[in-house]
Amino acid sequence: MSRSCLRSRTFKTIRWIVLVTTITFHLSPIAISSEGNSQISIVGGTLIDGTGAKPLEDAVVIIEGGEILDVGSRGQIELPEAAHRIQAHGQYIIPGLMDANVHLFRDVSVEFIARYEGRFEELIEEAAQISLKQGVTSVFDTWGPIQSLMNVRDRIDQGYVVGSRIFAAGNIVGFSGPFGREFNATASWTAAGEFIERVNEKFTKNVGPDLLWMTPDQVGLEIKEYINLGIDFLKYGSSAHDCTGCSGFPQPLGLNSMLMFSPAVQEVIVNTSHKAGITVQSHSSSVESLRLALVAGVDLLQHASETGPTPIPDATIRLMVEKGVYAAELPRTQNRLRFELENPELLHRPREHTQVLEENLIRLINAGVAIVMATDSGVSNPVKTEVEAGGQDFGAEHPEELGEAHFLWFKAMQSKGMKPMEMLLAATRNVAAAYGKLDSLGTIEKGKLADLVILGGDPLRDVNNYRKIRAVVKGGVLVDRAALPIRKVLTSRNQP
Amino acid sequence: MSRSCLRSRTFKTIRWIVLVTTITFHLSPIAISSEGNSQISIVGGTLIDGTGAKPLEDAVVIIEGGEILDVGSRGQIELPEAAHRIQAHGQYIIPGLMDANVHLFRDVSVEFIARYEGRFEELIEEAAQISLKQGVTSVFDTWGPIQSLMNVRDRIDQGYVVGSRIFAAGNIVGFSGPFGREFNATASWTAAGEFIERVNEKFTKNVGPDLLWMTPDQVGLEIKEYINLGIDFLKYGSSAHDCTGCSGFPQPLGLNSMLMFSPAVQEVIVNTSHKAGITVQSHSSSVESLRLALVAGVDLLQHASETGPTPIPDATIRLMVEKGVYAAELPRTQNRLRFELENPELLHRPREHTQVLEENLIRLINAGVAIVMATDSGVSNPVKTEVEAGGQDFGAEHPEELGEAHFLWFKAMQSKGMKPMEMLLAATRNVAAAYGKLDSLGTIEKGKLADLVILGGDPLRDVNNYRKIRAVVKGGVLVDRAALPIRKVLTSRNQP
Amino acid sequence: MSRSCLRSRTFKTIRWIVLVTTITFHLSPIAISSEGNSQISIVGGTLIDGTGAKPLEDAVVIIEGGEILDVGSRGQIELPEAAHRIQAHGQYIIPGLMDANVHLFRDVSVEFIARYEGRFEELIEEAAQISLKQGVTSVFDTWGPIQSLMNVRDRIDQGYVVGSRIFAAGNIVGFSGPFGREFNATASWTAAGEFIERVNEKFTKNVGPDLLWMTPDQVGLEIKEYINLGIDFLKYGSSAHDCTGCSGFPQPLGLNSMLMFSPAVQEVIVNTSHKAGITVQSHSSSVESLRLALVAGVDLLQHASETGPTPIPDATIRLMVEKGVYAAELPRTQNRLRFELENPELLHRPREHTQVLEENLIRLINAGVAIVMATDSGVSNPVKTEVEAGGQDFGAEHPEELGEAHFLWFKAMQSKGMKPMEMLLAATRNVAAAYGKLDSLGTIEKGKLADLVILGGDPLRDVNNYRKIRAVVKGGVLVDRAALPIRKVLTSRNQP
Amino acid sequence: MSRSCLRSRTFKTIRWIVLVTTITFHLSPIAISSEGNSQISIVGGTLIDGTGAKPLEDAVVIIEGGEILDVGSRGQIELPEAAHRIQAHGQYIIPGLMDANVHLFRDVSVEFIARYEGRFEELIEEAAQISLKQGVTSVFDTWGPIQSLMNVRDRIDQGYVVGSRIFAAGNIVGFSGPFGREFNATASWTAAGEFIERVNEKFTKNVGPDLLWMTPDQVGLEIKEYINLGIDFLKYGSSAHDCTGCSGFPQPLGLNSMLMFSPAVQEVIVNTSHKAGITVQSHSSSVESLRLALVAGVDLLQHASETGPTPIPDATIRLMVEKGVYAAELPRTQNRLRFELENPELLHRPREHTQVLEENLIRLINAGVAIVMATDSGVSNPVKTEVEAGGQDFGAEHPEELGEAHFLWFKAMQSKGMKPMEMLLAATRNVAAAYGKLDSLGTIEKGKLADLVILGGDPLRDVNNYRKIRAVVKGGVLVDRAALPIRKVLTSRNQP
Repeated sequence: MSRSCLRSRTFKTIRWIVLVTTITFHLSPIAISSEGNSQISIVGGTLIDGTGAKPLEDAVVIIEGGEILDVGSRGQIELPEAAHRIQAHGQYIIPGLMDANVHLFRDVSVEFIARYEGRFEELIEEAAQISLKQGVTSVFDTWGPIQSLMNVRDRIDQGYVVGSRIFAAGNIVGFSGPFGREFNATASWTAAGEFIERVNEKFTKNVGPDLLWMTPDQVGLEIKEYINLGIDFLKYGSSAHDCTGCSGFPQPLGLNSMLMFSPAVQEVIVNTSHKAGITVQSHSSSVESLRLALVAGVDLLQHASETGPTPIPDATIRLMVEKGVYAAELPRTQNRLRFELENPELLHRPREHTQVLEENLIRLINAGVAIVMATDSGVSNPVKTEVEAGGQDFGAEHPEELGEAHFLWFKAMQSKGMKPMEMLLAATRNVAAAYGKLDSLGTIEKGKLADLVILGGDPLRDVNNYRKIRAVVKGGVLVDRAALPIRKVLTSRNQP
Repeated sequence: MSRSCLRSRTFKTIRWIVLVTTITFHLSPIAISSEGNSQISIVGGTLIDGTGAKPLEDAVVIIEGGEILDVGSRGQIELPEAAHRIQAHGQYIIPGLMDANVHLFRDVSVEFIARYEGRFEELIEEAAQISLKQGVTSVFDTWGPIQSLMNVRDRIDQGYVVGSRIFAAGNIVGFSGPFGREFNATASWTAAGEFIERVNEKFTKNVGPDLLWMTPDQVGLEIKEYINLGIDFLKYGSSAHDCTGCSGFPQPLGLNSMLMFSPAVQEVIVNTSHKAGITVQSHSSSVESLRLALVAGVDLLQHASETGPTPIPDATIRLMVEKGVYAAELPRTQNRLRFELENPELLHRPREHTQVLEENLIRLINAGVAIVMATDSGVSNPVKTEVEAGGQDFGAEHPEELGEAHFLWFKAMQSKGMKPMEMLLAATRNVAAAYGKLDSLGTIEKGKLADLVILGGDPLRDVNNYRKIRAVVKGGVLVDRAALPIRKVLTSRNQP
Repeated sequence: MSRSCLRSRTFKTIRWIVLVTTITFHLSPIAISSEGNSQISIVGGTLIDGTGAKPLEDAVVIIEGGEILDVGSRGQIELPEAAHRIQAHGQYIIPGLMDANVHLFRDVSVEFIARYEGRFEELIEEAAQISLKQGVTSVFDTWGPIQSLMNVRDRIDQGYVVGSRIFAAGNIVGFSGPFGREFNATASWTAAGEFIERVNEKFTKNVGPDLLWMTPDQVGLEIKEYINLGIDFLKYGSSAHDCTGCSGFPQPLGLNSMLMFSPAVQEVIVNTSHKAGITVQSHSSSVESLRLALVAGVDLLQHASETGPTPIPDATIRLMVEKGVYAAELPRTQNRLRFELENPELLHRPREHTQVLEENLIRLINAGVAIVMATDSGVSNPVKTEVEAGGQDFGAEHPEELGEAHFLWFKAMQSKGMKPMEMLLAATRNVAAAYGKLDSLGTIEKGKLADLVILGGDPLRDVNNYRKIRAVVKGGVLVDRAALPIRKVLTSRNQP
Repeated sequence: MSRSCLRSRTFKTIRWIVLVTTITFHLSPIAISSEGNSQISIVGGTLIDGTGAKPLEDAVVIIEGGEILDVGSRGQIELPEAAHRIQAHGQYIIPGLMDANVHLFRDVSVEFIARYEGRFEELIEEAAQISLKQGVTSVFDTWGPIQSLMNVRDRIDQGYVVGSRIFAAGNIVGFSGPFGREFNATASWTAAGEFIERVNEKFTKNVGPDLLWMTPDQVGLEIKEYINLGIDFLKYGSSAHDCTGCSGFPQPLGLNSMLMFSPAVQEVIVNTSHKAGITVQSHSSSVESLRLALVAGVDLLQHASETGPTPIPDATIRLMVEKGVYAAELPRTQNRLRFELENPELLHRPREHTQVLEENLIRLINAGVAIVMATDSGVSNPVKTEVEAGGQDFGAEHPEELGEAHFLWFKAMQSKGMKPMEMLLAATRNVAAAYGKLDSLGTIEKGKLADLVILGGDPLRDVNNYRKIRAVVKGGVLVDRAALPIRKVLTSRNQP
């Protein structure tokens, strides 16, 4: 999506901002703030603006009409009279965090989807609010039910619903829906055919597994049609995926090592996306699928470090650097790493694969590959109604819990050797750059959208300070964090 | 439940009455009609009063306060002035039909229960309305989620909701819940443990499979506690049950031939129930489980004719007659019988079993066993979201569709040789008698509750005339049949 | 089987003798030793004769023609000249051990049975030799492929094959074959129908699950026909069985608490067996199934202590004592008990059930119930080709390994408080008595078959001394223990 | 394999030829003929020599030392005196038939492989004899247990066993063994891990699914090592495979449309094979996997016409012609085609795919692609012990039964419009050419190995005449067809 397009979406927000919750069953909207149109000035804090520049002490940020009106040292900038003023002495102002890989809807069990069919948007809203509450002002949803995601995205953009700014890909091109090969391959054994198809169609639209049968030209036409639905970016499978454990049945299939699309098809997918003005990314899980995606010209590689038992060849890493591609990485904290190495069967991932993944990631960092924050996170059900047979107790420091995962990301990447400022950029500016949103997002600079987080401690000194959130501002509006999520659905203890 | 108890329940109905629509979440009852209190006179029809007496032409029935105030030949009875008068010339007045075996909630797939968890009562209301619409003024629900059934039962009795009069047993004592041995034995492979347990508990309460481990005394205590929940009658498993096809997996287990309880335990179950003033019935599916239930002293035998490959011994039939026990039978029409014999694998029932069942039924009729109408029926989902792998296309004249099944019952029993008047009594008076409700239900006699159906043709001449319903009166209130079911849930085409 | 019958079987043995090796396809028996007919004198050991009498020091046992010719103190008995003399100073002579519950064939996986179909007898011979080697001169096989068992039984009796004396029941009346409800209920999902049926028929003969459908009279006829096959004793299911884990699939069915046969049918089974001159025993696993079997008049109760979560009522224990019924018990050592309590899920047995079982067993001992040694043991595959998904790693002191299990039995029963002499009698005389074989087996008395074991230490002082086997004599023949098993099949490391 | 290599293998045959059957358990070898070394002259028949030349009437073929010593018109050639003379007046002499795709071992069920583990070679010998009996003197086994196949191949070449000349590929590079992703993906649910691994390793050797994880260089090393085992040609998966129905479980995975290897890897596979002097072929089942294999430079395409729902692009067909690649095709007869279109669910193949396949095949023929006979056939079990759940009743004119399939091939290809002489060449010369064996096989020419069939009718006039086999000569030896298969294993009615 081009700058102007995003801008127009956002502008509407600013004009209409009422911060209403969904009206379905909601008897009264809760106004979180009506200051979207008015000025806010943040005064006296240390500004880490996301450009990589040295932190600026005693800074001032002036927000108006949802944008950054001005930013600089106190004294250099005239403080408006009437503005809502936030005193930030001793605090740290950073750009709103951006997560390059989330799933606002994630569970693929028959039980879960039967229960929430028709209520996907409620779940997505709840997830977007959990995320925003923790300082993630933009999320990139890389697999999910596209129409529901776009509906919530638009309601948030238009100010009817509060939540993280959503950018959505919908299906991973070539993948099945939740009740299919890549996710829950045995769902059809226990659920009705009509239900299976109805649900899968919500996820695959016209870019499901059928595309694997097609010629490059045919795939190109489908991609064009799919982009026209209004997706924000495109993701395709360079290799396949198996979700052993998702269904409660063992699925020892090894799909992760299989290729989805020939180079000719991948090239068509990339070119069609670029021609339509959106970025394109790959899902890969082997050295050859990674290399093919890179050669095809993707903008971003999801979990490039995931290559099974084979370390990424040096030549491939060099190519990543040369091409300036972004790598969205999902690191494990040391606690988590230990847990996974001790319980490989719980995660259906051989120990050797975990070790190679770890080494790959460190090599990527050291080689200077442009890394962006990604968590693959979603909302878990606290009363554990997911299928337990699949081994869903993910142990210490589970890296995939939305609202928590990004904090663990900093902790984990620090342990891999990434520098504090690099990490901050990876979670802000680089994500914006990777997705082509740098004109409006990713840094605290004059003219950009006013997405920022005020922390109670210096994140460059201690990654735990990312947790000390004092305020979140999104699109120039101060978020009422305590009220989020406004309606508990999945996180309610009164299930269902 | 004793007469006075039922009466007091019903009396309340009459006062507060009826023809209420459900409203979402039932915040407040809306009385659509207040005619429950006023008089109705039905004039000029032929009365078949359910006592076995000869039909009375040009009859008059006077209803007031929900009861039959008077009944007799025109001329003998003074017609009240102000009464709402129904002209019934050329029509036939019969007691409201009573179905001795229905399941207002029936589907046991993970998909279905996950979808409707928390909405059981909506489904039950819908089913009770579908049933009432077709002239069945009382239904005996012989397996289902007891609290939900009792809640709807009470709302109907109290006039907040319109529907068939419900009498409910809850669990079949000794059986698992829907996600267990007797119904969907493999649900636990694909659904969360907490969900499985939560759902099962709704059905089993304290009388699930654990009872099979117990001594007679221990079982007696549990039965007493269970009866105190407020159930209307008790049903227990003399033999077990397998529901091959229910789960989408083959379950070739042959549980149908296994015994559940020893004679000592069965005796305790029967005596405890009788002492509490409720009738007791058995589920049996083999010659020995049938005999044990009979010896234990049950009031009613569900599907006595179902004895696998072994014909019921003559001695057992003689004992049935001597004891005056009621047999609730589920006959097949000739079309249906042909279908089953041609497709034994679809129904997971060997052809030989079907043949023995058929012969048993005819022998029971000829021996003079007191038969009552039973259909085992429930509401199917018209958009077929049930698990199809289980072979749910039940072919021509599916005998288990609520609202249709009782019409097929007459057609089927006629083909077995049952006489018209016997059939009418089996569907009215005998059911009331079997369940100990003859003081208030089952016939059109002075002082009884005013449940009756007006038909456009003589049901004793042609069983198809049961379908020609001109009016249904329940508890003295004329049912607005066209409005039923008031809110389509399962039968809505906008699934889910 | 009457004494004379067994005697005539055995006499043949003595004539034709023993220590034969199997040869492939058994074209001709090879007599390795002809000493069956000659005399053996055992001199100078301490005799514990199995009658309960005080141990007799410096004893002499004279064996001839396969029988005990004389027994007494040295000095009282004239030692024959030419006899093969065994010096037993410092050693202990006890009757050959008898195991009241083994399975010479046991694995029910599709894989195993497909591999060994057509070779059952090889497995059974191997098992009978493993057992004999460890001092168990008689085994009572309580479930297995009857024709194969009888063939090996007869070859052993006739001296063509060496091995423990086999007495076999074949099917547990009412149970399915290995590929059915009681054992591997999902075999039919992965194996051919013809194979399934062919195998099941080998086990069920005419007394499989079909009997559950029948009237008492019909069952009686089947039992008579089955006994005529030549079985040695009869076992029936008073309750059912589930073998969770046997198939590699979870089978959460709870069949263990279900009854198989009505009291009337059980009575017919018992009476028909007794009339045919054989003993009858029950499989039970709940308090009511135990009580029904007892009332029906069985001679022996298998695992009476297994009653799920419910302790055996005192009245039932009193009845056991009054009736003088034998209880064949499978105790856990303390190590094993701890393992089971810590890993209930591995064994698919709730912790509470294990605790009740343990308490039951101690109560049976203290009440003076006549206990006999039983192990339920069979031969495991050392290269672990069984289905592992079923959790076949049974932990420390696995009580069900043939050749080892009986040693653990003494260790376990000692820890429950059983006295040394009681234990010895439970493993010798009582087993013979329970099975009606006391005229020829069970003690070292003049005229009985010469089955005895010479130990290197006093078994009444230390149960570990049962392991110090110096010699095994069966039917008057000294067993060449080192040569057993003669042909390794299942225990070969060159699988398959 | 180069000519000299094959020749040396064969030469040995000629020297040592004794036509012995396997000695395992075979008490006496059956000498079919000892004339391998002596001369045979075939006189008077019509020769269709497989070169495409016009049939030669009244021809003479002289065989000596296993080779064609001379061939030509009677009169032109001097008939040796002492030769064994076959009068062939009115008969037709054609080259021995060659099947480019068979599986001498084929069943992948747990049941089957457990039963025959350790006896693979017996099955393979039986299959090779069934094939030879019906005139197929050479078979190319394109998936099977390589060591067993090579052992039988060598025993046949050396004259110890009679059977079709075997050329074997072993694994399809990249595929799992029988108990894995491509064949029976759920075997591990019901069989022991050790068994699963032991069996899979026999099939995959070092070229199983692990190769999908590797870089091109790593794959090259594995291929080299694998070729060194002694395989005759190499086959790799350009796309994957699912064998829905093989396991008795539905496996709705759609693997057929997925790619296995990147172009870079495919190139390495092809080049490594060619460098080692063997031909290389692909398994493909989609338009892109077909194109990639073609571009990589394979010599032969298995079932090129199988491309799911997408017709082969014209450009791809043109490329096939230009490159002169061979297409091994598995046509359906019209009866069979009708059966498949009427029963798509039985074969787990959508109707649309079957239609596209059919059209593709006709387009390949019309475009002049070099087609070779292939049947994918193996031996079925006549007592149907295979897993029936997989829908193994393949209906009329099952094209995959070894010994029958090649006759159906001619019938089927005729119906697609292929010319008589083209078909004959496709089943003889072209197969030899495709596999690089034209120097020694494929035609009846001087100096070639003497593999030929004498038919009782003209195969160019009526394809049914291929069935009228009067004699089969292989390697100069007259085959005793009546004796084949010498030992029935799978085809015995005394199963198992």
